[in-house]
Amino acid sequence: MYPAKPIDLSHHLSEETRCRRPNAMKALWRVANRKPGMLSLGTGDPHYSLFPMKKVQFEVASTSECLDDPVATWTGADGSDARTQWFSCSRDEPGSVPFKSVMAYGTGAGVPEAQRAVTELTQYYHAPPDHICTLTIGNMDGVTKLFRLLGNPGDHFLADEFSFNALTNAPLAHGINWVPIRIDKGGLIPSDLERVMSTWDESVHGRRPHVLYTVPSGQNPTGCTLSAERRKQIYQLAQRFDILIIEDDPYYYLQYDDSGASLSQPPPSFLSMDIEGRVLRVDSFSKVMMPGMRLGWITSSHLFHSHLIYLNESSTQHPHGFGQIFITEMMSASGWGIGGFDRWTRSLRKEYQRRRDVFLAHFEREVASTGFASADVPAAGMFVWVEVHIHLHPRYRTDFQGAEGVAARTNVPQLMDELFERCLDAGLVVMPASIFATPASPGVAKLIGGNDPIQNRLNFVRTTFAGEEVQMQPALQILGQVLTSFFTESCESQAGVFLVN
Amino acid sequence: MYPAKPIDLSHHLSEETRCRRPNAMKALWRVANRKPGMLSLGTGDPHYSLFPMKKVQFEVASTSECLDDPVATWTGADGSDARTQWFSCSRDEPGSVPFKSVMAYGTGAGVPEAQRAVTELTQYYHAPPDHICTLTIGNMDGVTKLFRLLGNPGDHFLADEFSFNALTNAPLAHGINWVPIRIDKGGLIPSDLERVMSTWDESVHGRRPHVLYTVPSGQNPTGCTLSAERRKQIYQLAQRFDILIIEDDPYYYLQYDDSGASLSQPPPSFLSMDIEGRVLRVDSFSKVMMPGMRLGWITSSHLFHSHLIYLNESSTQHPHGFGQIFITEMMSASGWGIGGFDRWTRSLRKEYQRRRDVFLAHFEREVASTGFASADVPAAGMFVWVEVHIHLHPRYRTDFQGAEGVAARTNVPQLMDELFERCLDAGLVVMPASIFATPASPGVAKLIGGNDPIQNRLNFVRTTFAGEEVQMQPALQILGQVLTSFFTESCESQAGVFLVN
Repeated sequence: MYPAKPIDLSHHLSEETRCRRPNAMKALWRVANRKPGMLSLGTGDPHYSLFPMKKVQFEVASTSECLDDPVATWTGADGSDARTQWFSCSRDEPGSVPFKSVMAYGTGAGVPEAQRAVTELTQYYHAPPDHICTLTIGNMDGVTKLFRLLGNPGDHFLADEFSFNALTNAPLAHGINWVPIRIDKGGLIPSDLERVMSTWDESVHGRRPHVLYTVPSGQNPTGCTLSAERRKQIYQLAQRFDILIIEDDPYYYLQYDDSGASLSQPPPSFLSMDIEGRVLRVDSFSKVMMPGMRLGWITSSHLFHSHLIYLNESSTQHPHGFGQIFITEMMSASGWGIGGFDRWTRSLRKEYQRRRDVFLAHFEREVASTGFASADVPAAGMFVWVEVHIHLHPRYRTDFQGAEGVAARTNVPQLMDELFERCLDAGLVVMPASIFATPASPGVAKLIGGNDPIQNRLNFVRTTFAGEEVQMQPALQILGQVLTSFFTESCESQAGVFLVN
Repeated sequence: MYPAKPIDLSHHLSEETRCRRPNAMKALWRVANRKPGMLSLGTGDPHYSLFPMKKVQFEVASTSECLDDPVATWTGADGSDARTQWFSCSRDEPGSVPFKSVMAYGTGAGVPEAQRAVTELTQYYHAPPDHICTLTIGNMDGVTKLFRLLGNPGDHFLADEFSFNALTNAPLAHGINWVPIRIDKGGLIPSDLERVMSTWDESVHGRRPHVLYTVPSGQNPTGCTLSAERRKQIYQLAQRFDILIIEDDPYYYLQYDDSGASLSQPPPSFLSMDIEGRVLRVDSFSKVMMPGMRLGWITSSHLFHSHLIYLNESSTQHPHGFGQIFITEMMSASGWGIGGFDRWTRSLRKEYQRRRDVFLAHFEREVASTGFASADVPAAGMFVWVEVHIHLHPRYRTDFQGAEGVAARTNVPQLMDELFERCLDAGLVVMPASIFATPASPGVAKLIGGNDPIQNRLNFVRTTFAGEEVQMQPALQILGQVLTSFFTESCESQAGVFLVN
């Protein structure tokens, strides 16, 4: 654990955040409780005796220590044989979290018991220097709240040049502009970040970017994972250029062990090295439990935490009681506890690694063998980012002038659209790179590489090994066949489609 | 049911809303499913076989038809005797909502089964002309999303002059200004709304207010309920001045029957009379089930629905699976169904009405008898708005010049602050009117009544009859004693406090 050297970072808060006031009623309650035994006619809560629920009970997979591999036990057994454990929250019995408070109105922070559950988990995996956890209602809620917390209309934020489009699209509506940073097989390239930041001209481009949004492990869509070395470099650049880092890390627990060592260590999170309080880490249970849960958390400095609470109290309020119960009981002695969670995620990692390897074996036979596409082995996550060797296509052109007239333009976007359509016609859905291209602010097109625009690098498709296992081979067979027919066509066919563009 | 005559109201959408694009991936999925049996490598979901949950099970109060009064049965029995019913959602058994989809990622609309549950409920109670339901994660989420959906920075919105401050404070941070409309014992006064709208001068005050936020039944904090006649007048004014109405109606199901008739009808909701699509109704289960659920819904025209979905997909995503399960099963044949829900809410209404009457009887004896305060009988909700007869106070002044120098200023705010402090010192929490005063935009102070500012009408406190029943008598006794001592003091005492203000 690094020693904390927190610095004042309040200038990063958006105007909206600075204008937001704490909830006056909640402030009043704090002064009102001036002595024990106060009587109250002041609440607005329905009386808990009138809550029409007695109990909620969850049956979950067992992660008992006697199971070598709890995920294999869980998926191997048929419904009736699967080893399970139960926990519940009841109106009439004591538990890890009081029914009466978790099903009532609360503060924007949620109940202390649920906060403690995610805090202990964060401490166990990241041991952050001086941070505090804020519950969210899922990853999208967490990240988009951070965009509101930090971004003024007109601000520029930094992101991987390919990113999860639902997230990068979200803040465009309130005036955030994106500055995509180049990535390679190792993820975000620190020297490109440095180049952009050091050549940024505030008189031309506006306020210098002050927020970096990045997915450090098993990035969506590229599957890249930042090495420990790159993380350190990026953190140092963040210090040098006064950048905050939104570390969105849903695939943290799905980092695979390709070393053969029995206890491999994943690279340290940005959070774990954050001595200054400039990392806002977003965690999720979606990939290791269930996305429908919609309960996650942000770990940040106390400053950002308190403003997140005000934002919660001005929007979504505290997280739903059922999710708070689930997570608190799950992380307690009546559920998995941290030990059981760790056994589950290690076992899950093994299962996804197995699926990855099955997928890649099919990929090798059905797709790579054509010579028209290849893929790297992802060290984390759920995605294989397939590179299509588009320069081998008979209609590939480097002198193509698109409608936007950008220099050195190839016809990669048009060819890839055509490939995507052919896949659909053949009965296969893959995700085209184009929808993941982080939408660059027009004002920074030159700065981020006007001579080599991202359009030239759209020759990828995102595939997943988390779907139906029985579909892997037939799906990849279609991909191989479509590639072969697409690349071996006569060089004249369909060219007219583009000439009229 | 009125015939729908929908008109184009898209000019009410905020700039942010107009800029927001549908989620590209979700759009792609729609085109991708071009034929049956498509294979997919395109998803980003973890595989459902790896969700570590087998079942969630809820034990709730029975609302069986053989129970005369299900709430009385529920609260009367001790824990073990209470009649209950169970429902669940299981990985391995069929149910009202598929486990596999409700615990996975979904669209911003939630699962169709949960949408159907709230749609049927809305149809049953309101039979709206041509509307569609959007799930929310609670009332605050719903209302604040509507503020974002409709409000540009600098816009003026209309609201009851006393309102729930957590909601009226929320949009101030993104630049919404409030125009408080006068209320009396019957709630919002239509003629004051008409006066403000017809004297509004866009060259002086900016864009004319285009949104009214109001709580029509058992309003928080005043307990007022709008009569059918006022609702019709307000809807006609909304048509005449092109206003949208945000109808926030959490106390709808708690409208009391003081007629003695066996089947009294509450006044029609704004939604039920909304032929043009200008009502956005926000519904909540918090007051009739449990606030901690955090699942409600908005009913609106199709236009606003589709933009709400885009907003969900750019922020909170779909509602949490546990809540969607709860509400879908609860409203199905395995739970209460609409019939059981109706029996529960009628019975609950009876219980709150009983509490209200117990409260008012204590109030009469302990407080009204002092002559220094009085209260009307609220026709709905949970609140008694206690009027303090402040003009009887020996230090009451009408020539007081406050720091802000507003004309015709009394010292009501100062006296009421003092009363509030004295209550706290005596061990009693009540909610002072001052924290509910809708924060008026300074630019409209004259327009909304510069000669009779709201400061002169802060002589109220909000009390609730939904709290601990055993506290009612002792709490009201304290209030009576504090009032008596406060009003019968020597007229010199503490006056100096104000002279130095």
